[in-house]
This record gives sequence, C-alpha cells and structure tokens, in this order.
Amino acid sequence: MSPTTVPPGSQAADGAPLGIVGGRGVLPFTVAAAARDQGRRVVLFALRGFADPGEVGAYPHHWVRLGQFGKVCRLARREGCRDLVLIGGVQRPTLRQLRPDWTTLLLYRRIKRLFRGGDDHLLSGIADAFEERGFRIIGAHEIAPEILITRGPLGRRTPSAAETADIAQGLAFLRATGPFDVGQAVVVADRRVLAMEAAEGTDTMLWRIAELRADRRIPKTGGVLVKAPKPGQDRRVDLPAIGMGTIAAAADARLSGIALVAGSAIVAQRTRLSAAADRSKIFVVGVDDAAG
Amino acid sequence: MSPTTVPPGSQAADGAPLGIVGGRGVLPFTVAAAARDQGRRVVLFALRGFADPGEVGAYPHHWVRLGQFGKVCRLARREGCRDLVLIGGVQRPTLRQLRPDWTTLLLYRRIKRLFRGGDDHLLSGIADAFEERGFRIIGAHEIAPEILITRGPLGRRTPSAAETADIAQGLAFLRATGPFDVGQAVVVADRRVLAMEAAEGTDTMLWRIAELRADRRIPKTGGVLVKAPKPGQDRRVDLPAIGMGTIAAAADARLSGIALVAGSAIVAQRTRLSAAADRSKIFVVGVDDAAG
Repeated sequence: MSPTTVPPGSQAADGAPLGIVGGRGVLPFTVAAAARDQGRRVVLFALRGFADPGEVGAYPHHWVRLGQFGKVCRLARREGCRDLVLIGGVQRPTLRQLRPDWTTLLLYRRIKRLFRGGDDHLLSGIADAFEERGFRIIGAHEIAPEILITRGPLGRRTPSAAETADIAQGLAFLRATGPFDVGQAVVVADRRVLAMEAAEGTDTMLWRIAELRADRRIPKTGGVLVKAPKPGQDRRVDLPAIGMGTIAAAADARLSGIALVAGSAIVAQRTRLSAAADRSKIFVVGVDDAAG
Repeated sequence: MSPTTVPPGSQAADGAPLGIVGGRGVLPFTVAAAARDQGRRVVLFALRGFADPGEVGAYPHHWVRLGQFGKVCRLARREGCRDLVLIGGVQRPTLRQLRPDWTTLLLYRRIKRLFRGGDDHLLSGIADAFEERGFRIIGAHEIAPEILITRGPLGRRTPSAAETADIAQGLAFLRATGPFDVGQAVVVADRRVLAMEAAEGTDTMLWRIAELRADRRIPKTGGVLVKAPKPGQDRRVDLPAIGMGTIAAAADARLSGIALVAGSAIVAQRTRLSAAADRSKIFVVGVDDAAG
C-alpha cells in the first residue's frame, strides 16, 4: 500500500517515534507496520501477558506490566515519544491484580473512581492521564485508517430484509443503553434481543447463545451480532473491534452474521476475516447508524 | 388470614369456579389456596412437565400440555369457569416443541407473529386469545394480593447508600431498555452494569456473575440484582417474580442484595424467602420506581 495522503495522526512534528502501548492480538503490529510504512520510527511498550512475544521482537520495544503507568511515561520520554497509541485487548484487571507502580499509586484514588465507572471511563481516564503528562493519544485508525470497517459487506454474503430489520433493532437497542456505558454488542433474532453484552465480553455472550440453542430455548439458527460505538465514545482508545475469534464464535453460535457501524469499528486482518466469514457462510457488514 | 375486604378479582358473579392455568413453582397453589379461603371453587389446568404433581392432587384438576390452548378452553367451559389466572413458570418453548392442538393451529400465524416479539407479547397474546373466547384473565395478585412485594426490606438487612445508588442506576437502565421488551433484570455494582438479562433468564444471568468472579474479571463480592416491570407490562400475566431459587442464585453470585419495584413484583413464600435472605446475609427490598 502506498497512500497518497498521509493520515493526520501520523504527522510527527520532529521525527519523534510513535509509541505503541500494545495488548493482545495483531492490531499493535498492524499499527506499527503502518507507521513504519509511513517512514515513522516506532517503539513498542508491550504489555506482559497480553502482547504476542513472537511479534514484539520485530520492533524496538520494552516489556511493561499493566499497572506500570509511571514506567511507560518514563520510558516513552527517554525514547523521545510524544505520540502514543493504546491498542490491543487486555482483560479488565481487578485493582489488586494491577500491582501498581508508584506513579500509578499516586493516581490510585482517581483510578479507583474510574473503576467504578464502565470500561469507557477506565480507558479514557488512562488516555487523559497520559495527555496530562504531555503525551498526545492518537487513535490506532489515525495511523492505519484501513483497519476501520467501511459500508457494505466484507465477504460474499449480505443480510436479508429480515436480518436488516434485526440490525436496525440492535442499533436502536444499543442507542438506548449507550448512556449507561455498558456493552457495545447485542444479539437480535426475529426482532427479539436474545443477549446483551455487559461485563462478560462479546465471545462469552456468543457462547451463551450456543448454550441457549443446545437447551432448545431459542431456535436452532439465526440472529445477528450487532456492535456499535457508545454515544460520546472515546475514539482514541475504545472503538469496538472484531477479529478471527469473533467470526468463529459467531459461527459456533449459528448466527447469520455480524453488523458493525461503518467507520466506527476496527476489523483486524480484513482479508482473513472475509475468507473466514465466507467459509462459515455468515455475513459481516458495515452499516450506517441512523442516529449515530 | 381472614381478609376483611375481598379483592375485586375474586368476585365471581355466579359462584363460577376460578380456573388456574398453572406452571412451575408454588404460586399456582398459593393462588388456589387464597381463592379457596375466599370461599371460591377452584379448577386447576396443570401444565404437564411444569406443575408440581404432588400439589395438583389437592384440587380438582386437568393435566394439559403447553400447546393445548383449545383443550383448556373446552375444559374450562365444561367446568363453568369464566375467570382464568395464568401463573407459574414455564420455559419459553420452541414452536416445534409446542405440538399444538387444532385450536392452537388455527391461531398458528398469530402465534408465530407473537413468537417474533418478546416474552411479553407471547404471554399477553395468549391472555388476549383467552379473552376473545369469552374468558376473563385475572392477575394472580388480584386473587392473592399478599404475593406482591411491599416497600421496604423483606428480611433484616437493608441496602447501604452505595447500594441504593446502584439500585437507582439499575432502575434507570431497565427504564431505558423497557421499550425493547427484553429482560427485566440487571446486576449493578459500583454504578456499573455487570450483566443484563435477555433470553437466558435471571438465574443464568446470576451464574454468569459467579463465573466472572471466578475468572477475577469483576471484584469478589458486591452488586445488586434489580428487577422491574417493563413499561406497559401486562400485569395480568407477566409481573417479575422471585423465589427461593433466586435467593440461592444471588447468594452464590455473592451479591449484596435484590431490589424489586414495590407493588410490581411477586414474592412467593415471603416467610421462607425472608429467612433465606437473612441466612445468606443479603437484602431483599421493595423500592419505588421514580419514573414507573
């Protein structure tokens, strides 16, 4: 890929390297590769237990634990980073598991308050804390715009009229629950909400659908997974994402497909995702959110 | 108990027996006993696989399957019933499992449409179909008003200020999701929605909380189960209910307590529930729903 326009987030005033605080999955490396392709130096701050050790070695990197906010700030300054991307999955830790370093401890009361809110607050709060220390937090999609889903189907299959109605119902439902900073995903079949994501995460919600089917409490097949950003979502750090695991879980749950809001959801590994969706005979589609 | 006023629902114009279409649990028999105490004859239409065979024998009764709408109408007419109560748990069946009788088959297209909506539509639709055939559907609480929860705690423990804030958050969330005819229950801890009920039912949702704790994805204890009626809920057939199983599941999920909207939730076996709540050190409280 040779983009003719350089995305705004990739502008480094003075050739300063891009810092990437990276968790699970391929996205940290997708962003790193995109920045490197744009001629920008990259430093990874790889989260121990989450970032893939097999991939981290391809870039200058430091291993850090989830609670080491202070260490990341210190290392990022030493490396000359001004811009940071926070990307890749981490499991929401308990306060205890964090084993915070001193700087994090100084933020303790604030973090405790953040923990009381939803996931949004936590991620946005961490982003804000970095910005207060002079860093700029940049969305992964500002470096690698190609990771955002566009309007229309990703693979061969497209939603039927009934499935389109289920998608609309799911989007309306997520608009209603958005202000509560809860899950960003719902499963709708025949206009009925079968499951809604809260603290359990998307995959666990999809396993539940499979269990409900096994118990014959819902019909054997059908239904759409709808994911949407929350109103006022912090696009720097918290866009919904799907990966190969989501496709597999949706297929296991015998869903018809997955709908995401175009321009507001991250699809890692588009080509592999599209092929997997076709193999599983499900659709993956980017849609407009009327009220989004 | 010797009520000085007879509840309106218990008025039988001409001494006609009260028909009770009864599913799982003690409620069908609580209602039957209340009607009998009021000097009214009772006929049970016991749903096979759901109604307790050990209790059914205490009343004149007929065994019926879930799909035998026509048979219930025929038997109820023969017994001289004008008023029917539909009460007790049933698992939402698949259309296939229903094995409908002829009258039900005539209603097939309508039932199929009802199945497409949420549980409300299904129960209300069945109630409407009975009324179109000349029966009057009466809420279980109209016969036995003592089954409704009143304002205040049921046992010894009362919610703290923080738990009261979680209850308010849960009620606000359920008001937002109410129009979607989805679950009536949510678990909130520290103002965060941890789980929301959809097709899986309250107990399954509570098991999920226990699993999230085991996986250390949420704190070890705390949180309130909040149940509320949906806006425009059909009080004849679909008030939320809790029983001994709910107390046990809430205790297993290490919740602090359970909040229900006063006058809008059914508590079967109040004395046993209260004792079980005290043993488990959880609260069960009836609260006002500001916007209810």
